[in-house]
Amino acid sequence: MALANVQRKERNQPIFSPKSMLADKSELARRFLDTRNRLNANVDKANNFLVKRFYNIDHNTYLEGALSAKTKELMGMVASVCLRCDDCILYHAIQAYRLGVQRAEQEEAANVALVVGGSIVIPHLRRAYELLEELYG
Amino acid sequence: MALANVQRKERNQPIFSPKSMLADKSELARRFLDTRNRLNANVDKANNFLVKRFYNIDHNTYLEGALSAKTKELMGMVASVCLRCDDCILYHAIQAYRLGVQRAEQEEAANVALVVGGSIVIPHLRRAYELLEELYG
Amino acid sequence: MALANVQRKERNQPIFSPKSMLADKSELARRFLDTRNRLNANVDKANNFLVKRFYNIDHNTYLEGALSAKTKELMGMVASVCLRCDDCILYHAIQAYRLGVQRAEQEEAANVALVVGGSIVIPHLRRAYELLEELYG
Amino acid sequence: MALANVQRKERNQPIFSPKSMLADKSELARRFLDTRNRLNANVDKANNFLVKRFYNIDHNTYLEGALSAKTKELMGMVASVCLRCDDCILYHAIQAYRLGVQRAEQEEAANVALVVGGSIVIPHLRRAYELLEELYG
Amino acid sequence: MALANVQRKERNQPIFSPKSMLADKSELARRFLDTRNRLNANVDKANNFLVKRFYNIDHNTYLEGALSAKTKELMGMVASVCLRCDDCILYHAIQAYRLGVQRAEQEEAANVALVVGGSIVIPHLRRAYELLEELYG
Amino acid sequence: MALANVQRKERNQPIFSPKSMLADKSELARRFLDTRNRLNANVDKANNFLVKRFYNIDHNTYLEGALSAKTKELMGMVASVCLRCDDCILYHAIQAYRLGVQRAEQEEAANVALVVGGSIVIPHLRRAYELLEELYG
Repeated sequence: MALANVQRKERNQPIFSPKSMLADKSELARRFLDTRNRLNANVDKANNFLVKRFYNIDHNTYLEGALSAKTKELMGMVASVCLRCDDCILYHAIQAYRLGVQRAEQEEAANVALVVGGSIVIPHLRRAYELLEELYG
Repeated sequence: MALANVQRKERNQPIFSPKSMLADKSELARRFLDTRNRLNANVDKANNFLVKRFYNIDHNTYLEGALSAKTKELMGMVASVCLRCDDCILYHAIQAYRLGVQRAEQEEAANVALVVGGSIVIPHLRRAYELLEELYG
Repeated sequence: MALANVQRKERNQPIFSPKSMLADKSELARRFLDTRNRLNANVDKANNFLVKRFYNIDHNTYLEGALSAKTKELMGMVASVCLRCDDCILYHAIQAYRLGVQRAEQEEAANVALVVGGSIVIPHLRRAYELLEELYG
Repeated sequence: MALANVQRKERNQPIFSPKSMLADKSELARRFLDTRNRLNANVDKANNFLVKRFYNIDHNTYLEGALSAKTKELMGMVASVCLRCDDCILYHAIQAYRLGVQRAEQEEAANVALVVGGSIVIPHLRRAYELLEELYG
Repeated sequence: MALANVQRKERNQPIFSPKSMLADKSELARRFLDTRNRLNANVDKANNFLVKRFYNIDHNTYLEGALSAKTKELMGMVASVCLRCDDCILYHAIQAYRLGVQRAEQEEAANVALVVGGSIVIPHLRRAYELLEELYG
Repeated sequence: MALANVQRKERNQPIFSPKSMLADKSELARRFLDTRNRLNANVDKANNFLVKRFYNIDHNTYLEGALSAKTKELMGMVASVCLRCDDCILYHAIQAYRLGVQRAEQEEAANVALVVGGSIVIPHLRRAYELLEELYG
């Protein structure tokens, strides 16, 4: 737990864009994070041991390492576009933004997912571009 | 057809929680079932032979057999979480609840799906936990 | 670009049902196309080279050829049902309708997808049938 | 059962390319069908009621109807490429060939699946083209 | 680690069919487990922290709990058939067999996956039935 | 075409590990590339316009840009693990290796895919680790 807190701090350090600023810029981000927080509070309340361990692994996956946190958030975005989960796409695109990833980098990552995943991912890309416009536009 | 009606009855027997009670407990369940019923009425109207046969096989899959109906509804839930279909998750979680499945059993089934299917299923789990909270909370 | 315009025209020729008529018949189609147009305008604004090339290939895939445009739109619908993307299903079902595809043909194509893709596609079929009812009912 | 036999006959009527000729032309087709037959015999032996009913629906899906059997076999191929199942691709491509579908039609159907499904389907397309070369080349 | 060993023991207790007997009965099971062990040894050698933690969660998911280990192995099988992974299907079917699950129970679990996942899972079912025949036939 | 050749050269520049050396180190890589080349030659022979355009887009997706070619090959690997295509995993892991990506970077990318995609990707990871061992071990 204590270790987890330290890691959480480390991860937050390179983030220059606090949540409050994010909410000002993007209505989509604000609403998404509000719903996510509300639903996560309900999952936390259930206090399921395995779910908590999974969340912990999930958290550790995106920390600085041999690859930067930025790169891994973008990889999470690529995976999310390929597997076509809007919530996951929004989450990783927001995380990448907060870590300082540029819009052109987000678009290139999305392009890898578009070419690998095909036109079936386009509706998700459209919604992702709406977020990118609010964050960077 | 007559046979189907008999089977439908058999299946309903072990269910101790009638739909009316369900609707009282869970706003999510009520709204989901209302929309589902409305859309199914429209599908029924089309009277497509193959669709009707598929619905019939689908119905028979979850009847009591070598495995209990409870277990098979939970398996339907596992499959639905893995394949990430919110409507299907709600449906099987509600069916399992009506058959008397306990919350801890629902959570363990969901955990199999979480570990097999990965973090991409988490947004669906969050919404499933919202239903579980309304039904059992 | 000029070429693309020519191709766009060719593709539109066999369509006997203009968009305005479509919007009159189906509230679902109208709302879907409005949202799609709004989001596509935002993607166009980003002017991403690779995205534009992908859109161009995507467009060319459904033109008249060894197979008719009608057949290929229905194939796009089959693929979309199997991969379970509501936006893609609506899009191809609308395109097929505008090209003169009959309702029975739409249902048979959907049945291929239902049998190949299983009950997990049923929630998407329910929503597709709602559109079919508005267009053809 | 008797009915199934009748349907099986109907379906075979427009097929001008008997299995023996197919085996002469394509080593890939011969080996695939041999393995499939051996494994299906084992499934038949299990005599599972639900599996038999599913097989029956599956069979009926591709019969002549509002859409031709040719078109529906190609749709089965599109679905199989999108969902990336080599056995299913081979099966539907062979069925389409036996019904008289031309190579250009097979390629256009595969292209719909390529564009919808993305580069992840390319390894399957490569193997499909190997079959097409043996059958039509 | 020590804890993990204890858990591993607990899990093995209800298993009445040791690996050696399994290998005698089924050539498919023997070859699958040999390859799996060889490749897992290579993964273990890499000693990747996150992979080890994931393997640990994976292991814990199927232990006795609110649901029996038997039921959860069958759920793992349902998930594996729906997501169409032959290795995962073989693994869970073997585990279920070793825990004393009957053939009829395996078939019913597979049927849930067949109906939810559609005909695209049939090639995997055919291979699963080959294993079932060797184990129970 | 001429343009494509230029791009192909640009892309090859940072690669310090020629194919011949690769084949010496890894039997898995050699066999995979041989089969891939043989099957691609057959696809090239078919000379399908749309397939060629798709291959061209696919090629351009991984060129140096806002993100490095290294990062994008790893993203291709993440996508391939999530979507569970062994050929695609081998291809991107080999490309990444040839561009100078370190083993630890490959493992971290694979971990993103493992956590997002779940235990269903483990059989593919096992085979990927076999390649990594041959290339870096």
